[in-house]
Amino acid sequence: MSGSSFGNYFRITTWGESHGPAIGVVVDGCPAGLSLSPEEIQSYLDRRKPGQSRYSTPRKEEDHVEILSGIFEGKTTGTPISMMVPNTSQRSRDYAEIASYYRPGHSDMVYDQKYGFRDYRGGGRSSGRETIGRVAAGAIAVKLLDQFGIQFLTYTKSIGPVEASPSRFDRSQIFDNPLHMPDSEAAREAALYLDTLIKKGDSCGGIIECVVRNLCPGIGDPVFEKLDANLGKAILSIGAVKGVEIGDGFAAAKSTGSANNDPYTRSADGDIVKLSNHSGGILGGISDGSDLILRAAVKPTPSIAMQQDTVTKDGQGIQVRIQGRHDPVIVPRAVVVVEAMAAITILDLLLASIPSRLDNLKRYFRSIRDNS
Amino acid sequence: MSGSSFGNYFRITTWGESHGPAIGVVVDGCPAGLSLSPEEIQSYLDRRKPGQSRYSTPRKEEDHVEILSGIFEGKTTGTPISMMVPNTSQRSRDYAEIASYYRPGHSDMVYDQKYGFRDYRGGGRSSGRETIGRVAAGAIAVKLLDQFGIQFLTYTKSIGPVEASPSRFDRSQIFDNPLHMPDSEAAREAALYLDTLIKKGDSCGGIIECVVRNLCPGIGDPVFEKLDANLGKAILSIGAVKGVEIGDGFAAAKSTGSANNDPYTRSADGDIVKLSNHSGGILGGISDGSDLILRAAVKPTPSIAMQQDTVTKDGQGIQVRIQGRHDPVIVPRAVVVVEAMAAITILDLLLASIPSRLDNLKRYFRSIRDNS
Amino acid sequence: MSGSSFGNYFRITTWGESHGPAIGVVVDGCPAGLSLSPEEIQSYLDRRKPGQSRYSTPRKEEDHVEILSGIFEGKTTGTPISMMVPNTSQRSRDYAEIASYYRPGHSDMVYDQKYGFRDYRGGGRSSGRETIGRVAAGAIAVKLLDQFGIQFLTYTKSIGPVEASPSRFDRSQIFDNPLHMPDSEAAREAALYLDTLIKKGDSCGGIIECVVRNLCPGIGDPVFEKLDANLGKAILSIGAVKGVEIGDGFAAAKSTGSANNDPYTRSADGDIVKLSNHSGGILGGISDGSDLILRAAVKPTPSIAMQQDTVTKDGQGIQVRIQGRHDPVIVPRAVVVVEAMAAITILDLLLASIPSRLDNLKRYFRSIRDNS
Amino acid sequence: MSGSSFGNYFRITTWGESHGPAIGVVVDGCPAGLSLSPEEIQSYLDRRKPGQSRYSTPRKEEDHVEILSGIFEGKTTGTPISMMVPNTSQRSRDYAEIASYYRPGHSDMVYDQKYGFRDYRGGGRSSGRETIGRVAAGAIAVKLLDQFGIQFLTYTKSIGPVEASPSRFDRSQIFDNPLHMPDSEAAREAALYLDTLIKKGDSCGGIIECVVRNLCPGIGDPVFEKLDANLGKAILSIGAVKGVEIGDGFAAAKSTGSANNDPYTRSADGDIVKLSNHSGGILGGISDGSDLILRAAVKPTPSIAMQQDTVTKDGQGIQVRIQGRHDPVIVPRAVVVVEAMAAITILDLLLASIPSRLDNLKRYFRSIRDNS
Repeated sequence: MSGSSFGNYFRITTWGESHGPAIGVVVDGCPAGLSLSPEEIQSYLDRRKPGQSRYSTPRKEEDHVEILSGIFEGKTTGTPISMMVPNTSQRSRDYAEIASYYRPGHSDMVYDQKYGFRDYRGGGRSSGRETIGRVAAGAIAVKLLDQFGIQFLTYTKSIGPVEASPSRFDRSQIFDNPLHMPDSEAAREAALYLDTLIKKGDSCGGIIECVVRNLCPGIGDPVFEKLDANLGKAILSIGAVKGVEIGDGFAAAKSTGSANNDPYTRSADGDIVKLSNHSGGILGGISDGSDLILRAAVKPTPSIAMQQDTVTKDGQGIQVRIQGRHDPVIVPRAVVVVEAMAAITILDLLLASIPSRLDNLKRYFRSIRDNS
Repeated sequence: MSGSSFGNYFRITTWGESHGPAIGVVVDGCPAGLSLSPEEIQSYLDRRKPGQSRYSTPRKEEDHVEILSGIFEGKTTGTPISMMVPNTSQRSRDYAEIASYYRPGHSDMVYDQKYGFRDYRGGGRSSGRETIGRVAAGAIAVKLLDQFGIQFLTYTKSIGPVEASPSRFDRSQIFDNPLHMPDSEAAREAALYLDTLIKKGDSCGGIIECVVRNLCPGIGDPVFEKLDANLGKAILSIGAVKGVEIGDGFAAAKSTGSANNDPYTRSADGDIVKLSNHSGGILGGISDGSDLILRAAVKPTPSIAMQQDTVTKDGQGIQVRIQGRHDPVIVPRAVVVVEAMAAITILDLLLASIPSRLDNLKRYFRSIRDNS
Repeated sequence: MSGSSFGNYFRITTWGESHGPAIGVVVDGCPAGLSLSPEEIQSYLDRRKPGQSRYSTPRKEEDHVEILSGIFEGKTTGTPISMMVPNTSQRSRDYAEIASYYRPGHSDMVYDQKYGFRDYRGGGRSSGRETIGRVAAGAIAVKLLDQFGIQFLTYTKSIGPVEASPSRFDRSQIFDNPLHMPDSEAAREAALYLDTLIKKGDSCGGIIECVVRNLCPGIGDPVFEKLDANLGKAILSIGAVKGVEIGDGFAAAKSTGSANNDPYTRSADGDIVKLSNHSGGILGGISDGSDLILRAAVKPTPSIAMQQDTVTKDGQGIQVRIQGRHDPVIVPRAVVVVEAMAAITILDLLLASIPSRLDNLKRYFRSIRDNS
Repeated sequence: MSGSSFGNYFRITTWGESHGPAIGVVVDGCPAGLSLSPEEIQSYLDRRKPGQSRYSTPRKEEDHVEILSGIFEGKTTGTPISMMVPNTSQRSRDYAEIASYYRPGHSDMVYDQKYGFRDYRGGGRSSGRETIGRVAAGAIAVKLLDQFGIQFLTYTKSIGPVEASPSRFDRSQIFDNPLHMPDSEAAREAALYLDTLIKKGDSCGGIIECVVRNLCPGIGDPVFEKLDANLGKAILSIGAVKGVEIGDGFAAAKSTGSANNDPYTRSADGDIVKLSNHSGGILGGISDGSDLILRAAVKPTPSIAMQQDTVTKDGQGIQVRIQGRHDPVIVPRAVVVVEAMAAITILDLLLASIPSRLDNLKRYFRSIRDNS
């Protein structure tokens, strides 16, 4: 099965394992005429770089991106943009041992079952490094959407039991603390919590929240290609994500219609607006013009130094401690991955939404004919 | 955008509005040779029928399914199976009034924004009746998967704040109480809760849980076509679903690696098995041989008799009470829709997983050549 | 495999066999706001109706189309348009005998090999009636393209060895003679040729030519989604078509660069135009603004009354004469099918071409935001 | 539009321009467990290498392929295989001049119309170098199909007016003469013809024939995903191909049913076989077990040294002679490209055909369960 592509109109195809020569992505369907430099990609990619604090793996991954095609004289040409990041800092010796047994919480065993064998070095295709291609592509999607005024704010909502408080929400904090929490107090508390886990050789999970502002209404389709359905697939396709919700999400399941419905009113400047946003910006699968709000539940890093029971490939019971340099929590580094996937999805559906009205189409083609 | 198809190998295409002449589905990619009768489809479809208790709309929808193609002498031929349900009991007069204003919590306004106008009768394409096609197709998927030993158990996990208790789990209850809860005590409590809502003209949401047993390991792909990612899209494509989670889901975000990892052991009969199932049957996007567990959060029915603030199409503020025959909670009727979408997704990925190993493929083609 | 859908943006899904209750199509992705009546579909569909002359089967197929969804108050709503034609005049008894043996030139044997058995009544899914869905959908595509000024002219280029002469090309003839040849002299000659074949119980093939005028330049993509590649697939997906060519086609293979290249010049009104059109309106897979010209080679009707050698399902040699009411040549009735498939393909790629330039996209979204 | 991918199950995505840093392909969906070395890819790729005779461009293109992912310990892992060929020998200065005008027979003008500007160096994405990715991927497809016994023979059928004679068909000649014609006499005659064209600064086209032997029956789908329809798209997606035909192709349009139908008989070893093969191995869109035969019509190389009329980008009439090192005929180098695309298409549909019969599927899954 060819499962390495995502999107129909703005389509990305990622390739590469953590321990092969390189890892990369092909972005197909990017409109021509967008000015784009390797530095812009690099700068976005650096947001997932490890080693920036004691709360992420001390592995040094330079992750230097090269653009191999699709750009001419500083602008996209409308043809595929191929981007590659050489794998420079991977130490295969760390992984030699794990070839023989199945790490709990990892996909080791299912690979053997699915493919008959596996590339056991660093998780192979299931490595977190696979997200490099997504983030490089996301940099383009975010830049393109910005041309239409659409903007993203993504951050750590919670780490283990420690949650950022909406009442202390401080946007400037997001890039100020290494945990990317929009609440300095919660960030400090979460850091202390992580310290205790690191000491025990344990890890934890957390929640990432993504807010999309100034999204045009009308994006998404009423049935299978709902905006929320596609976002759900995009976010759940990120390794370690175990749940996704839109707006009030699971809390809506405990609510009532009278509380959960967002009443409409007329704004000062004459627009019809919602008085609340329980829907999280999506109604009937279609963007409603309010802020889009989504959350992803990320499970704890499965690679822990604490002793665990498991079996060898031959089924013999053993006890293991996973060695190596692992993140005690992957949430802070996954923030930009969630944003990238949300941006790619929204851009794809935005392009898909164009042919929905004949009047707009006619206007479009008339102006094209006049111009050429 | 053509958003009315789902699946690649086993692909369904639904069509129809609640108030058009009929509603239906085309199932493409069903293998030849499955015995299939209209009665089997009808019987599965009857599980979403309203009017079976005071907790669902008293509208009488007969929903009689006709098979128009793809069956010859009682067996599927490998060609598209077209199924149609005439819309017999729709009263357009109930909906004439709502043409003029936007119902809170509904997609009325986004339709106008996306398409320039809308079919205002009964929600048009966003009607719950759209799920008829999904369920009819799901009946085939469930039957096909049963040929490979894969089985489904789907039920109401919670209604508003009332949750079925795992300790009182009683499978026989699922089809015994009208709320489809596997816990008679919770079902009684939920019924009382619904009574109070009905009196107030309010509604509530709830959670549906689906368990898939005996699923082969190896289903799903490591990157974008993860099993959980596709299930996420499938479930979030059902109207009113606002969140989806796999295994421990959002609870995993608050857990630790040592608690959340499922240790492996060897079973009595020599298989490698997990000692727990926090993963919900999926690791790295691929089925791991344990029970697959997913949950969907369903928002409260937006059509309520209580007074709400809203605006007319022209932006004038008004107060409305939604008239008509509406479900106070859609969860019990949506149980079979969640199951149908899960089954369609799993079947699609099961078929997609076949070419993953050369050794299996060679064996397959050798046996085909020998047979023909 | 789910092979009954065509197109990505304007997608059609056909279903039905010649001897089931009905045959139909779901059109997904049609923009909202197109006025559309069943009469318009019917009128286009009538162009493939048999029984209009002695050169097509005397079977009476009324082919009355019903629209089941996607239209509200005479306009498309942007949701799937489901169309159905009941199978009223099929006589299964004609086909009972052929269940036991394999008709030469038909797909009887390959069905048995692929599916394990077959619906032997009238060719099942390989029946010419399958094209009803294509033509009904094509009626919509033709009407939509007409909104953008794009127009089709499709006719019989040759019947057996008798070819319409370009020097006698007379557009008015196309709908005037039952063979749809744009040359009355060739039409008379072809009719005489068909008379001799009918007497012998034989059949013949022919060539269909489709010309598309006023097509915008820029439609199609440079690599796999070339306009000609997609047209090639569309046309070869019509049963009995064995070859397709664009512009000079196979003749170009015998030509030289100096003769085959189309020189550019500036037209009186300042446009850059080609002085000739060997390319047939496509360069590098992209429409070049000239007339698009394509030809389809149609094989002779395989059902003939002449005696043929074949085998029974068990491999026993027999001699057969195919009974029943068969077209001595299917070309005249296939003209509208070729046009329908060309129109569907061009519309699909036209919609796909919209996001190719950022400047156009920005202009588009700016005007949408201003409008809403 | 994302038009750089081909195939659904075995999917290739090509990227790169002739004058960027590199050109490449990602192959997704290759089964795990195929032994594969860079040397095998290189060896197949060398078949399209220029400079091997005076009848191809004297440009020296080393085209050294690197495998960047998807292989572990000499075997495919089931994950994407990324292959890259650095562009080493491209001289941009040859192309600087052509930025200002539109070359006849090239896609220069349509790029400007579609994208607003173009990468004018060497044709950019429309360069013949784009086929490098196709051929590298084709090497894998050919090797995989060989595992199932399916084999390819592809050669030059004609060059300009000079055609290889079936009566002198000599398979060994195909790799012996630089024109890859299976007829030494025709090859000599074609060489003389090319000599006269080279002297005049002209070019010519030709026909490529591909024969696929030992193809299983049952490959392809009855409606839109016909085997011939997909082959048509694949072959017409190769630059310069203007026509494609299957079996007797355009000649069938001049034939009669009695001559064109292939009668069945029982072979000595009890199989049902066709006595002739006018169908070219495909009936009703499905492989019929005979040799598959397809032909591609290739237009003359548009880059010629002879003087041609054209216009500058501003529409000013000029006369040009295309300088640079161009093939007088591209047919010999395109032979392997046609084969590669045919192999990719057939492999894709072969994998797609697996779920067509429930009995085979059940047998397959039973054996998987027993094995694991």
